[in-house]
Amino acid sequence: MMMMMHNGSRNLWKKMCLKPRILYLYSTNSLSTTLLNNSLRILGPDLPEIWIPNPSSPSRPPITHRSPFIFNHQEQTAAVIDGKMMADEIRSEIANEVSRMKNEIGKVPGLAVVLVGERKDSQIYVRKKIAACEEVGIMSLMTELPEDCTENEVLDAVSSYNVDPAVHGILVQLPLPQHMNEEKILNDVSLEKDVDGFHPVNMGNLAMTGRDPLFIPCTPKGCIELLLRSNVEIMGKKVVVIGRSNIAGLPTSLLLQRHHATVSVVHAFTKNPEKITREADIVISAAGVANLVRGHWLKPGAIVIDVGTNPVEDPDSESGYTLTGDVCYEEAIKVASAITPVPGGVGPMTIAMLLSNTLDSAKRAYRFT
Amino acid sequence: MMMMMHNGSRNLWKKMCLKPRILYLYSTNSLSTTLLNNSLRILGPDLPEIWIPNPSSPSRPPITHRSPFIFNHQEQTAAVIDGKMMADEIRSEIANEVSRMKNEIGKVPGLAVVLVGERKDSQIYVRKKIAACEEVGIMSLMTELPEDCTENEVLDAVSSYNVDPAVHGILVQLPLPQHMNEEKILNDVSLEKDVDGFHPVNMGNLAMTGRDPLFIPCTPKGCIELLLRSNVEIMGKKVVVIGRSNIAGLPTSLLLQRHHATVSVVHAFTKNPEKITREADIVISAAGVANLVRGHWLKPGAIVIDVGTNPVEDPDSESGYTLTGDVCYEEAIKVASAITPVPGGVGPMTIAMLLSNTLDSAKRAYRFT
Repeated sequence: MMMMMHNGSRNLWKKMCLKPRILYLYSTNSLSTTLLNNSLRILGPDLPEIWIPNPSSPSRPPITHRSPFIFNHQEQTAAVIDGKMMADEIRSEIANEVSRMKNEIGKVPGLAVVLVGERKDSQIYVRKKIAACEEVGIMSLMTELPEDCTENEVLDAVSSYNVDPAVHGILVQLPLPQHMNEEKILNDVSLEKDVDGFHPVNMGNLAMTGRDPLFIPCTPKGCIELLLRSNVEIMGKKVVVIGRSNIAGLPTSLLLQRHHATVSVVHAFTKNPEKITREADIVISAAGVANLVRGHWLKPGAIVIDVGTNPVEDPDSESGYTLTGDVCYEEAIKVASAITPVPGGVGPMTIAMLLSNTLDSAKRAYRFT
Repeated sequence: MMMMMHNGSRNLWKKMCLKPRILYLYSTNSLSTTLLNNSLRILGPDLPEIWIPNPSSPSRPPITHRSPFIFNHQEQTAAVIDGKMMADEIRSEIANEVSRMKNEIGKVPGLAVVLVGERKDSQIYVRKKIAACEEVGIMSLMTELPEDCTENEVLDAVSSYNVDPAVHGILVQLPLPQHMNEEKILNDVSLEKDVDGFHPVNMGNLAMTGRDPLFIPCTPKGCIELLLRSNVEIMGKKVVVIGRSNIAGLPTSLLLQRHHATVSVVHAFTKNPEKITREADIVISAAGVANLVRGHWLKPGAIVIDVGTNPVEDPDSESGYTLTGDVCYEEAIKVASAITPVPGGVGPMTIAMLLSNTLDSAKRAYRFT
């Protein structure tokens, strides 16, 4: 059944075995508990993603009020990748295209937003998206439903937008209330209008070589745009993606792999994430943990894209909080060669990519080139 | 637009930039070439996966005829993970379940195979799969079509199996002839009968946290079974997957991530794959390159799963060739703590997982528990 010789070091193997002293790798005893109908076992345990800070990390410098563009010149080595400026340019390109479409065929792209409940952050995001649409000439529609509405009411809203020819993109603002089946609702969005790219068919086609998704999720698309427009070479580079959420980390790692980077995904169960991250030429952090990535996590000269937008208490701020990235910016700028600020980095690019996906969808629908 | 200070080392950054001397990360000049309608650019260049051996590698020992179970005891340190034996056991469990199903509800699972063309290797694989079905009591059906048949003939075969209630799994043997659209044909297989797990919805749901695919592709499922049944802990371990094909490398990396491993994917564009692989606790090689992974690629004590089945010329063999893995076995057994042989490792498990998926599908269809 198995052969095992004892003249080599077996320390690693011992550490890796749940039963370190077993002699047979294949124990028939374990079979009865690991028989058929075991798809859950094969799919792996469903565990919460909780990041535990390394207690041996040096203490962080105090958070100070700062503009990302004002630094101590003595210490900064990193170039700042200005996502807001890039997004402004992209939005202006989109506005030109929308205007050309309107002039030539008398149509404009349409985005429909479904917002359920009264979450403050969701309301702010939706307001920003709708304002961005207006600015470039994309028509926007919105359905607001109360927190206690039924799943069917949400599905009805999605269905009516699915068949509305003036709507080219449908966005269901996440998170949905607990009592709703997010998967069912997102799967109901027409593939051709899935501008968020969260439908499993789009995700599967993003993952598979030789397949092309109709839409790339906005945050990963924004990250890649930031890199490409900054002339950062991706092919063959070691990239560490921190975090593996369905909306950011996962599709970003899939997209980077399509660009032929060598991708490692670091998550809450990764042992010694600093060490792995320190080997990366490019670090993309989407963990959703404020100041997780410290200066000593980075290789000198690394490129850092910070997807995190984490609210951190700040009594001096009017709202009571400040938005902070995953990356400890004050430390990282002394080590990295280029970095995105928060705010003003990935965030504006994400909204620009939503507009870009909506425009692409309308062009496809009207066969407008 | 961007700030750049010059008091730090910028060597890495320079190496990574296509235009190393630009001062602005965000150059408006590049905009005109990287404007809208750029989904191909964002999706990354479509390049062939060609592995180039490292010329500085030590020369390989001559290939000798060998049984995986006979070695020089002085040198071997690795335990052999016997996939054939595990697969035999699983097949016997499946046979029991099929028999119970037949006794209790008078039904058996059914697998339909579509084979196009006269490729010898495809014919051998299909014959093996059908023989394996017969052995466990799964009914098998087969449609053989000539190399020059039309895509519609293949689609018709798939459609008729899609609606046949006695068929619970449909397998389109790959590769299909060049003139056919593989994507279109695979997407046509009913999701509920996609026992190969190659439908983008299944792949997307495998990738996404909190989603469950109806079927897990057979080779990755076999690899995980090998690890789980060998009591190898996966969570938190560093795993390197070599290769990123849609049928093996990609879904294996996705499945390992669901088991909370820290996964790095190595491919033909990876620089210094030896170095990255040498850091892994578990190495799964699915590159399709004979003897790519040398002894010095492995950390002492690593677990090695070899997915490769590469035909290598062998004048002493009746067929003229021998099947060889991706891993240089003679070298690896001296370094690894456990390893799968080729043949007799992943191969038999892949077929067992096809039977397991077909059984699961029939149970789902008949609501049989």
